[in-house]
Amino acid sequence: MVASTQIVLASRPVGAPTAANFRTETAELPPLADGQVLLRTLYLSLDPYMRGRMSAAKSYAAPVGVGDVMVGGTVSEVLESRDPGLAKGDVVQSYSGWQTHQVTQAKGLRALDPDLAPVSTALGVLGMPGFTAYSGLLKIGRPEEGQTLVVAAASGPVGSAVGQIARIRGLRAVGIAGGPKKVAYLRDELGFDAAIDHRAPDFADQLRAAVPDGVDIYFENVGGAVAAAVYPLLNTYARVPVCGLIADYNAASAQEGPDRLPAFYSRILTKSLTVRGFIQTEFVREMYSDFLRDMSGWIAQGRVKYREDIVDGLERAPEAFIGLLEGRNFGKLLVRTG
Amino acid sequence: MVASTQIVLASRPVGAPTAANFRTETAELPPLADGQVLLRTLYLSLDPYMRGRMSAAKSYAAPVGVGDVMVGGTVSEVLESRDPGLAKGDVVQSYSGWQTHQVTQAKGLRALDPDLAPVSTALGVLGMPGFTAYSGLLKIGRPEEGQTLVVAAASGPVGSAVGQIARIRGLRAVGIAGGPKKVAYLRDELGFDAAIDHRAPDFADQLRAAVPDGVDIYFENVGGAVAAAVYPLLNTYARVPVCGLIADYNAASAQEGPDRLPAFYSRILTKSLTVRGFIQTEFVREMYSDFLRDMSGWIAQGRVKYREDIVDGLERAPEAFIGLLEGRNFGKLLVRTG
Repeated sequence: MVASTQIVLASRPVGAPTAANFRTETAELPPLADGQVLLRTLYLSLDPYMRGRMSAAKSYAAPVGVGDVMVGGTVSEVLESRDPGLAKGDVVQSYSGWQTHQVTQAKGLRALDPDLAPVSTALGVLGMPGFTAYSGLLKIGRPEEGQTLVVAAASGPVGSAVGQIARIRGLRAVGIAGGPKKVAYLRDELGFDAAIDHRAPDFADQLRAAVPDGVDIYFENVGGAVAAAVYPLLNTYARVPVCGLIADYNAASAQEGPDRLPAFYSRILTKSLTVRGFIQTEFVREMYSDFLRDMSGWIAQGRVKYREDIVDGLERAPEAFIGLLEGRNFGKLLVRTG
Repeated sequence: MVASTQIVLASRPVGAPTAANFRTETAELPPLADGQVLLRTLYLSLDPYMRGRMSAAKSYAAPVGVGDVMVGGTVSEVLESRDPGLAKGDVVQSYSGWQTHQVTQAKGLRALDPDLAPVSTALGVLGMPGFTAYSGLLKIGRPEEGQTLVVAAASGPVGSAVGQIARIRGLRAVGIAGGPKKVAYLRDELGFDAAIDHRAPDFADQLRAAVPDGVDIYFENVGGAVAAAVYPLLNTYARVPVCGLIADYNAASAQEGPDRLPAFYSRILTKSLTVRGFIQTEFVREMYSDFLRDMSGWIAQGRVKYREDIVDGLERAPEAFIGLLEGRNFGKLLVRTG
């Protein structure tokens, strides 16, 4: 018998999650049936979308039930296999959630080549966040050379890929991040054309100065005050791919007025804007193989860089996740469990 | 010398326009230069977008100056021509505005064939409103057979064309209008699958019952309370072409809370919605000739019907326009001046 240490949803958060919303348990795993594998988690990905799954509200995916293991993408080692397609020692991309071990069907697991790239990148630049950036920018943003792109959370795994791909496509890329260290990283290491600290008192003025020709693509992954500063700068026919609204995820109830909706809606009309929500899964069939080819090539050429923020030990996942929602991580947040 | 009776913008409205915002003047027109024509207005089109032009606020087009002639599409007869392309007696589509006569360049005027369709249709079903419906529905709405479309102001020139084209494409078309006469017209004469009165106390419930499979396309030309009822019914991947927001045009200031924007924006994300503002001019080059061919064919076959609401005398234009913003017209609103 193998035991899995699991972090389950103890209660649904009201507003920002706290440690009390999580609970650690131990579960004995069943023996393997044919076609199954026993996995040991090496890395667990922590991502903003998980906040949505903690709520009971209907979203694009079912919520995590109270008492259930928190969901999440993982990279795992095969400890035991009863499937001809996978062998002991293989490393796979899996969806084991917040736990140390899992028994699951082998079918659907993607084997990773550790010689091609560090296996942790399957959860970041070469995984869901990277593909969110790639598909949303190319399919919805429709970038054209010489145009201007703005992206927030730009030192994170989605934003950093968005900005770097935009630069490869010949756009002016302006990144927004929180704090001088992240801003310096965008400018000095990732090569953004401009980088702005959203905590600066004159943030909106700095942003306006950084986009002398207006904004053609606003890749939306935060919402809130940053979005309010960007919208007035959008050009006619600007595109806004919306993949996340982390600033609003913790809002517990309807917000105080004035009602900004009529002015927002009117701007969509008068500027002929395209505002388009998406989840990367929509585009997997159409362009995932293009993504893997392009992105691994760009990484090999040094044209796309990435940064990981690794926390050791599954027991630290709740604290790290709470910090993610506050912007305390710096780079793709991963929990190393192996 | 020819005199033109003109209605000018006397002052900018605060909230809903009143008669005091308009003034009638008489202007002596200059003699014709080479390449010019003297026009006598036969029909003046009154359209919701004119409310925007009365405000100083920057929009997609320059505002009408105080003291200037109100802008507007017209159908006119050529009284005199100094251009080889047009002869006395020709009828043209023009943009003379709210006046009885105009001296203008012949170049850019489109001659109409009175045998093909009544010339007034160049301001309605075979003109800007019809093309707004055609281009917005086909390019942005991307209709697919079996899907469900909702359109408001459905007895008007845009909405009635949207619903009828949707039905030709095999969609379920649900029309919203104000009052039992218009609702009966949608259902009994235009063949909408369902028609709903937005003034009914149980409007939202009726709407929900009329779209058992949800809404795939909401053609947005009103905003306000109707939009608030439709958005919760939108399916994943629904498209919202936004061509007008007549319900909000008269709003004089920021509206009372609560702030509905975060919930609206969040719905765009969780439902992967496409919300896209547009002005029909964007698509003229690409598809205007297709439109004229398709629409005149559908009219000839009886598959697209239209209704005109004709007011006699330029002096009645202000009153008719004020009524338009209140939904008092029934069909394409035209002023007959000839």
